[in-house]
Amino acid sequence: MADVRTGGKSGRAVGIKDVARELGMSIATVSRAMNARGEVSEATRRLVLETAASLGYSANQSGRSLRRGRTGTVALVMPIQTARTQSGETFFLNVSNGLQETLLGHGLNLVILPFGSAVRQEQFLRDVVDRHVADAYVLADTQRADPRVDYLLAQRVPFVSLGRTRADGYSWLDLDFAGVAERSVRRLAERGHRRIAVATADRDVNSDAEFLRGYRDAVTTLDVDDDDALVVRLPDSRDNGDLLGDRLLAMPDRPTAVVLAQETLAPGLYRSLRGHGVEPGRDLAVIGFRENPVCAHLVPALTCFHVSLEDYGRRLGEIVLERLSAAPPAPTQEVWPMELVPKESDPALPF
Amino acid sequence: MADVRTGGKSGRAVGIKDVARELGMSIATVSRAMNARGEVSEATRRLVLETAASLGYSANQSGRSLRRGRTGTVALVMPIQTARTQSGETFFLNVSNGLQETLLGHGLNLVILPFGSAVRQEQFLRDVVDRHVADAYVLADTQRADPRVDYLLAQRVPFVSLGRTRADGYSWLDLDFAGVAERSVRRLAERGHRRIAVATADRDVNSDAEFLRGYRDAVTTLDVDDDDALVVRLPDSRDNGDLLGDRLLAMPDRPTAVVLAQETLAPGLYRSLRGHGVEPGRDLAVIGFRENPVCAHLVPALTCFHVSLEDYGRRLGEIVLERLSAAPPAPTQEVWPMELVPKESDPALPF
Repeated sequence: MADVRTGGKSGRAVGIKDVARELGMSIATVSRAMNARGEVSEATRRLVLETAASLGYSANQSGRSLRRGRTGTVALVMPIQTARTQSGETFFLNVSNGLQETLLGHGLNLVILPFGSAVRQEQFLRDVVDRHVADAYVLADTQRADPRVDYLLAQRVPFVSLGRTRADGYSWLDLDFAGVAERSVRRLAERGHRRIAVATADRDVNSDAEFLRGYRDAVTTLDVDDDDALVVRLPDSRDNGDLLGDRLLAMPDRPTAVVLAQETLAPGLYRSLRGHGVEPGRDLAVIGFRENPVCAHLVPALTCFHVSLEDYGRRLGEIVLERLSAAPPAPTQEVWPMELVPKESDPALPF
Repeated sequence: MADVRTGGKSGRAVGIKDVARELGMSIATVSRAMNARGEVSEATRRLVLETAASLGYSANQSGRSLRRGRTGTVALVMPIQTARTQSGETFFLNVSNGLQETLLGHGLNLVILPFGSAVRQEQFLRDVVDRHVADAYVLADTQRADPRVDYLLAQRVPFVSLGRTRADGYSWLDLDFAGVAERSVRRLAERGHRRIAVATADRDVNSDAEFLRGYRDAVTTLDVDDDDALVVRLPDSRDNGDLLGDRLLAMPDRPTAVVLAQETLAPGLYRSLRGHGVEPGRDLAVIGFRENPVCAHLVPALTCFHVSLEDYGRRLGEIVLERLSAAPPAPTQEVWPMELVPKESDPALPF
């Protein structure tokens, strides 16, 4: 079973980053000094250890024994030609920042392996593994049935998947898509809504399947309409926010609210609704999935859910380190909680 | 001198991508077959060559003799913690798609080396070069005086910079920042504007310096106000669009138009202006730099300039291949043209 952990943001222990900042050194240098790698002078090493001790740095993480890989590198395998990327979705880049920090703290480098339109995803990964590009991999954009996961399991290559598939027995970290969908519907139901639509992408991606699962859990439990016509699946296109507006307004029994599995739909949806004389947040309640800079300037402000992508990336790094440890623990499977950020886009009925 | 080339989009010759699509193979496989690398069967190789010939594929590019590097890899060195990334700027990811296509067509792999907040940019590059991560590098986020360029020149490592610095004697590809600024001011002047502000980031990045150069060229040539108070430099922050609105409205002699070196400022600027009862595109004319999905849903639609990032990435790939060729030509220094996309945000005076 997946463990839902508390995503803390404050009260962090003193980390290698703090030591590096105090000394004006890079994390890589501090890490090398702590791990007594060759390239650092003894004087520097002593200074680093003394500073770390004076700041109260706890070395238990840093003392973890890693399997010595051939590359010292972890690779994030990342799509770059999805509609979400083209809509300004920098999710993976922001996660990379925290991931890189944790990995560098253990002397590991992060590279991103982009796969664009010239690449076939599955074969791409085989090529990469054949070439021993990295000691461990992070998979993004996980599909519900993902042959990459089967392949890496069969090859016994350490990896962590950002998002889960139907396969079992491996480590993954996932956002709480189902929980957000369920809580969104519940919030709208408490505000008097009965016809609540949901919008997801028409792709076989785990995150959308999870979001729909949460939506279905809610509509079958709560006193709201359980109607398949309220489920809108959209093509992977930059114009899908506009398309969603058209689809919602064309429904014979029009919903009073919509929950978005991709918040990147919101700017196009707002514009589309207004083009038809329908005011978002006044004539139609809207809740988006994740707090996202792409939506930051919408008026009315979009109700959505917050996650610190840096913290999420750091946790991802810890799970990667587990997979690389000399004696790896049982696979970690974690759903990362998200926090409601109530704004003005989802008022109660009657409007 | 920099050569301004025509950024064609159509009439492309048959490329390796077309051959791959016709055969349902990956570009990497087709490339291997064409270059007679070991991993491809003789039957596949024959099929690929026959198909290529039947499609009219021209092999002159593919016949280019590349210096055999140790890695077969090109690395894009990319920042991930700038305000622009956090505002949903996926510029480099979209450029990567075209870059990857061109490189794969010559059997070269693309990796992205992110540098986030845990990394010191200059030292990072030294570490990477020491570890021989790639045969050639692409530098992004080029500073006006960029020690990375000096370092790579001194090390005789092949590289191309996305954006130019003050150093000479190396290859770069740059967007036409100065030209866009100059044309924006000219367009506004023709529409009756005299007080035209400009907004850039407060960083020593080449692109902003170029943009300001174009702005200054225009205001000193045309019949418009030449007033330093109209130059707004903003911190590298996610809220800088809002801040820009505040700064413009606080000016004693308020401008009637503003030109944005970063179009990602526009959504926050629109919201900020409206918060003060000022309607963008009616009470203040706005022109943004680049057509960007982050601005796609603004009303009134933002006048800006178009560039095909895929084509730009492909051209970047060609310049990388030049640097890797057995007999590299003189450095290529190219300014990539951009095309005006007139919309509704920059009406003529009187409003």
